[in-house]
Amino acid sequence: MNNHSPITQINGEDTNCVNAFDRGLYYGHGLFETTRLSGGAIPLWPLHCKRLAAGASRLGIPCDERKLVEYRDTLLAQCPDNGIVKIVLTAGVGGSGYRPPESVSPSYLFQWFPFPKYSCDWFSTGIPLFLCKHKLAISSSLAGMKHLNRLEQVLARAEWGDEYPEGLLLDQQGLVIEGVSSNLFCFRENQWFTPILADCGVAGVMREYLMSVLLPALSVPVTESRITLEKLVSSEEVFLCNSVVGIWPVVSLADRYHWPLGEHVKSIQHRLQDVLPCYG
Amino acid sequence: MNNHSPITQINGEDTNCVNAFDRGLYYGHGLFETTRLSGGAIPLWPLHCKRLAAGASRLGIPCDERKLVEYRDTLLAQCPDNGIVKIVLTAGVGGSGYRPPESVSPSYLFQWFPFPKYSCDWFSTGIPLFLCKHKLAISSSLAGMKHLNRLEQVLARAEWGDEYPEGLLLDQQGLVIEGVSSNLFCFRENQWFTPILADCGVAGVMREYLMSVLLPALSVPVTESRITLEKLVSSEEVFLCNSVVGIWPVVSLADRYHWPLGEHVKSIQHRLQDVLPCYG
Repeated sequence: MNNHSPITQINGEDTNCVNAFDRGLYYGHGLFETTRLSGGAIPLWPLHCKRLAAGASRLGIPCDERKLVEYRDTLLAQCPDNGIVKIVLTAGVGGSGYRPPESVSPSYLFQWFPFPKYSCDWFSTGIPLFLCKHKLAISSSLAGMKHLNRLEQVLARAEWGDEYPEGLLLDQQGLVIEGVSSNLFCFRENQWFTPILADCGVAGVMREYLMSVLLPALSVPVTESRITLEKLVSSEEVFLCNSVVGIWPVVSLADRYHWPLGEHVKSIQHRLQDVLPCYG
Repeated sequence: MNNHSPITQINGEDTNCVNAFDRGLYYGHGLFETTRLSGGAIPLWPLHCKRLAAGASRLGIPCDERKLVEYRDTLLAQCPDNGIVKIVLTAGVGGSGYRPPESVSPSYLFQWFPFPKYSCDWFSTGIPLFLCKHKLAISSSLAGMKHLNRLEQVLARAEWGDEYPEGLLLDQQGLVIEGVSSNLFCFRENQWFTPILADCGVAGVMREYLMSVLLPALSVPVTESRITLEKLVSSEEVFLCNSVVGIWPVVSLADRYHWPLGEHVKSIQHRLQDVLPCYG
């Protein structure tokens, strides 16, 4: 399956061509979702849709869920059953400079990729985490959204090479926010904590699923909280999550702080695998 | 002249098609310049080149000035003698997610547009300025650059309609930074001040030209400074500038604060017009 070439469709048509005047390119005026494709289906699809629609509303882009489903199904009819489906929704062409047009005609870009190569060990033995020097900017009007303005992540990811699967991002005040491509949870005082994302960060779909569905089903308390680096390093267990890889236990930060791969993380991994086997 | 359609060339070839995998679309991993075209030439070209190269270096994009000149001349040979030339330099296709490829192969996009319609009065009688609610995020690693992550400007520009030609942006601390598409100068205590752009904002090419060439030639002192809203509103004269329109005197802010269109602004306008007549 992984030998297939990527496939791109824009508004349901096979093409690799994005209009040079698209506001997605000009200003990053748009959003994206990176979804897992497993056995011909996208797990957590309703949450991806919900997040995309919420972000689109904040950016003044009308998002038609009927079209999302139609273009998704057009892609799925042509691509392999497993891999990654990336969805990019932009404000399309138009407007006078930064000013959006009165009537936005969005572009729906759907892409299929083969699933990237990750080490199986990361799921079972945990990952070492890099500590990024780049500090996330604070902007409540952009916080939480998976928009196309991702230079901060590009600069952060350029700080290290192959030696770490993921890096930790702090904000301008030094608070713990997220991984470069993932969200973070830490366990202490008999409950899970995850950073508040009101000022910066991306509110991930897997984070949402764990908080609203899986952890409540396990009767495990979870709280959004202000998390300092001190609070993180003195936690008992830590994991990262996203909707591509599921859950990665974290066993160290900056080769200096260490956590065990404990029973609390393992029980969440097992429950997730029971419900959605692709994340096992 | 203004009846011509826009022209787009990528890497010197006529095309409206940007690769759907371009990092410019995916992440806004790139930069742009919006330049004035007058009588077949781009005034301030060396400063546009210098800023583009400096930003490219910060974003890990190799910028070949020889190619910039070659692609510029290819465009200028085909387009009308007057208008706007937009240059977009992106990190091209490649890399593993946010991580840039080891060898970046940039895309050079050149576009010609007709000059937009502005009121002639704005040059001679000054403009009213809107005060944006959106507060610029603070990020020293992105400050100063004219990169493609411009959602803040899009959100700010969406706050008002036709009633103001431009809006004023403050940062998260309430300091005065810039116009949505321009830089700001204010006169008080016998000198000009312009905001420090170390934490946010775009360091404009016209701003650079005024600070390093034109104001020194007029023996007028100018200082980069921390400018509060109080300092701005108690200034004697205010203007905005960019390399498309030149200099616009500002006569009011939020319909509440007012400045005269005084001799200090006029003398700068006249000097600029003497040296570069297109800005008259």
